[in-house]
Amino acid sequence: LKAAIVAIGTEVTEGRIANTNAAWISRRLLRLGVETTLHVAAPDDREEMRRAFEHAASRAGLVVVTGGLGPTVDDITREVAADLAGVPLEEDAASISWLEAIFARMGRALSENNRRQAQFPRGARVVANPHGTAPGFEMDLCSARFFFAPGVPHECEKMIEADLVPEIERRRAAAGEGAVVVRRLNCFGLAESKVDALLAPHFPGPEPALAFNISDGVVQVYLTSRAPSAEAAKATLDEAAAKVCATLGHACYGEGERSLEEATIDALRARGLTVATAESCTGGLAGSRIARVPGASDVFRGGVIAYANDVKRALLGVPAEILERDGAVSEACARAMAEGARRATGASLAVAITGIAGPTGATPTKPVGLVHLAVAGEGVARHREVKLPGDRARIQHLAAMGAIELVRRAALGLGDEHPRP
Amino acid sequence: LKAAIVAIGTEVTEGRIANTNAAWISRRLLRLGVETTLHVAAPDDREEMRRAFEHAASRAGLVVVTGGLGPTVDDITREVAADLAGVPLEEDAASISWLEAIFARMGRALSENNRRQAQFPRGARVVANPHGTAPGFEMDLCSARFFFAPGVPHECEKMIEADLVPEIERRRAAAGEGAVVVRRLNCFGLAESKVDALLAPHFPGPEPALAFNISDGVVQVYLTSRAPSAEAAKATLDEAAAKVCATLGHACYGEGERSLEEATIDALRARGLTVATAESCTGGLAGSRIARVPGASDVFRGGVIAYANDVKRALLGVPAEILERDGAVSEACARAMAEGARRATGASLAVAITGIAGPTGATPTKPVGLVHLAVAGEGVARHREVKLPGDRARIQHLAAMGAIELVRRAALGLGDEHPRP
Repeated sequence: LKAAIVAIGTEVTEGRIANTNAAWISRRLLRLGVETTLHVAAPDDREEMRRAFEHAASRAGLVVVTGGLGPTVDDITREVAADLAGVPLEEDAASISWLEAIFARMGRALSENNRRQAQFPRGARVVANPHGTAPGFEMDLCSARFFFAPGVPHECEKMIEADLVPEIERRRAAAGEGAVVVRRLNCFGLAESKVDALLAPHFPGPEPALAFNISDGVVQVYLTSRAPSAEAAKATLDEAAAKVCATLGHACYGEGERSLEEATIDALRARGLTVATAESCTGGLAGSRIARVPGASDVFRGGVIAYANDVKRALLGVPAEILERDGAVSEACARAMAEGARRATGASLAVAITGIAGPTGATPTKPVGLVHLAVAGEGVARHREVKLPGDRARIQHLAAMGAIELVRRAALGLGDEHPRP
Repeated sequence: LKAAIVAIGTEVTEGRIANTNAAWISRRLLRLGVETTLHVAAPDDREEMRRAFEHAASRAGLVVVTGGLGPTVDDITREVAADLAGVPLEEDAASISWLEAIFARMGRALSENNRRQAQFPRGARVVANPHGTAPGFEMDLCSARFFFAPGVPHECEKMIEADLVPEIERRRAAAGEGAVVVRRLNCFGLAESKVDALLAPHFPGPEPALAFNISDGVVQVYLTSRAPSAEAAKATLDEAAAKVCATLGHACYGEGERSLEEATIDALRARGLTVATAESCTGGLAGSRIARVPGASDVFRGGVIAYANDVKRALLGVPAEILERDGAVSEACARAMAEGARRATGASLAVAITGIAGPTGATPTKPVGLVHLAVAGEGVARHREVKLPGDRARIQHLAAMGAIELVRRAALGLGDEHPRP
C-alpha cells in the first residue's frame, strides 16, 4: 500500500500557511509501513481540486485529503468528491443530530452553512470528529481509497490516529502484506558526518537501512526495516538501535519525538537536581525551551536574562574587572554568570550563555557566532567555547541547545569526551 | 501566467523536513501577480518525478522545481528533466571552471560526483548559484517553462530573487499582461471575527479583495488588487491600506513580514525607552522574542525568569504576603513582578507574565490558560488578565505576545481601548 497526501486550500497554495499536515501524515503512515509517493496542495477551486484528486489516485492506493470541510462557501471538498464519484450529496442524520447538540450547548441554532458540514457523497462512510465541527468521510474514488480529514492540524491528527491508523492495520493484517518499520534515534553534539562515519561500518547492507536528518542541531538517525512481519522488523530494529546506542554513547539522548530538553529534565529529576539559567545573547531562549516541557517546574527554578552588562553585574555579581578586562563574551564572564545564577536562585546547577549573535557586535578577535557556555554546580565548573554558524536566530537557537546539553552532561556526571570512530 | 511548484526529495515526502520552499516561492510569485495553482512533492524516484513534472506542466505555464540538484546519486533531477525532454545531459564548461575554482579554494580536487552538478539537459539555460555548488537551469518541458533551483532554502530563495523574478517581470511587461498586487497588514489584539466585522463594510466589492489569515495570534489582513497595470493596482492598495489603518487604529502594528516585536522595539527606540521582562510561566520566551530582533540591545536590558516562587521573592522582591494571599497567578503578583524587574534592571518599562500554562497546575478558580500580565514604568501601571486557548506551548506563546503588545501600547502611550465597529 502506498499513500498520496492532498491538502486543499488557497491559503496553502498562496503560501500563507505551511502545509504541516502532509509531513505529519507521511511520518505517521511510514511508522505503519505505508510509504508516501506524493504530496499535493490545490487551491479552493473545483477544477484544480478534481485534477489533484485524479493525479493522487493515479499514484497511490490510499489518498488522504485534508481541508475544505469547513462551513463556508469556499469549503467545497465534499462537492468535488461527490461530482467526481458521480453521486449526489446527502445529509447524514446522525451528523445533523450531533451538530445540533454541539450548537445547543453553545446556545445557538444550527445555521444553513453549518448544516453543509453534515452532507456527504452518497455511499461515503462518515468519520466522527470529536474535536471540531467538521466530520470526515471515506470513499472509493478513481480506483483509490480516499480518506477526507479536516485541515485544522490537531483535528486532522486525532481523526487519523483514531480512525485511519487502526483501519490500515486491520487491512494490512488481512492482506498478509509485509511490514516496514521505522525507528528514530536522536543525537546531539556530534556532526552528521561524524555520526555517519561512526555508524556506517555497523550497517553495511541494505537491511536495516540507515539514514540521517539534521533538525535544529540534532542529528536524527533513522533505521528502517522491511520484513515479512512487523514482529520480525521490530526485532531487527531492537538489535540495530542497541548498536547505535552503544556506538554513539551518551551523545544519543533519546528516541522518536523526544527532545534534548526532555532528556535533560529527566536526567535532573532522576538525581534530584535543580537548574537555573543566565543568558545574555539568547535573551531567555534556553529558559523558555526548558519551561516548554510539561512538568519543568520539578527542576527549573528560573534565571536571569543579563542582556546589558550592568544587569550582569547587578543581578549576577559578575565583577566589573572581568567585563573590562575580558569583555562580556569571554570564558571568565560565562563562568561568573553561571556562578552568579546559581547563587541568586539556589539551584544545584546553573548554565550561562554569552556570545555574539550578530549581525553586528563582532570584533576582530570575537566574530559573529562566538559563544561561551559555562555550567556551575557543586564540584562542577565546566566551560565550552563554540563557533556557531548561521544567522542571528540560528546562532541563538544552537547556543541555547548547547547550554541545555551542557546541563544534561553535568547532570549525568559526564565530561566533554565524545566517542571516537 | 500561473505557476506550479514541485519539491523533489524523499526527505519531504517522508515528512522528515517541511517543504518551506513552496510557501516562500508562492508568496514571492504572488507579489508579482503570478498565482500558484499547485504544490507537488515527489520522492527521489524517476517515475514519481516524471509524473509530478507532467502533472505540474498540465496545470501551469511556469513550473518551479526545487531540490535534487546535489552531487549524490540520489540527486536525479537533471537526469529526469533530460529524459523527459528526450535530450542528453551535457557538461557545461563554464560551470566546471566555476566548480574547480570553488574546490581549489578549499584545497580539494573536483570529484566525479561534483562534476555531475555541471551537467545539464542539452539546450537548457544554466543559472548561476553564488551561494552553493549546485547551479540551477531553465528549459521548456511538456509545453511549460521549467525553472530548476536547489532545495536548500537560502540558495533557492536567492536564485529565484536574482534570476526568475526579473525574468518574469520582463516577460509580463513584454506581454502587456495585467497585474495582481498583494499587500499584507498585521493586526494584534483583536479577534479575526472582530477584524472582519470592522473591515467588511469598507470592502463590499470584489476589488480590492479582502482576506484574513491568523498566524500565532496575529491577524494578517491581505488586500489583493487586480488591475491593468501594477501602478493602478498599487494605487488601489494604497487607498485600501489607509482605510484598514484608519479603521483598526493602533491594533494594526505593521506591514508585510514585520513582527510585533520589531514594532515594539521601534516604538521604544523612538521614545528613548528601555524594557525588561519578569517571566514565570513563559520561562524567558518574551525576552527571547525581543532578543531575536537584530539591534534589540538598543532597548532591551534583560530580566528575570522567576519560575519558582522563592525566585520571585529573592530576585524581584515580590512580598511573601502576596504569594500567600493572592498566589503567584494573580494581578497583585504580576504587578509586583513588573515593579521588581524595573527596579532590578533600571529599565524604563518592565513587563511581567504569570499564569497557568498547563497541563497541570490548575485550581477550581485558576484554570489552565489563565494569565496575568502587568507593565510598570514611570506613570505607567497597567494590568491585563487573559484566558488563553490551546496547549502549553501555545499558551506560552500567546502570553509572551500579549506581554510584548502591552509594552508596545505603553511605549506608544496608549490605553487598553480598541476600536469599535
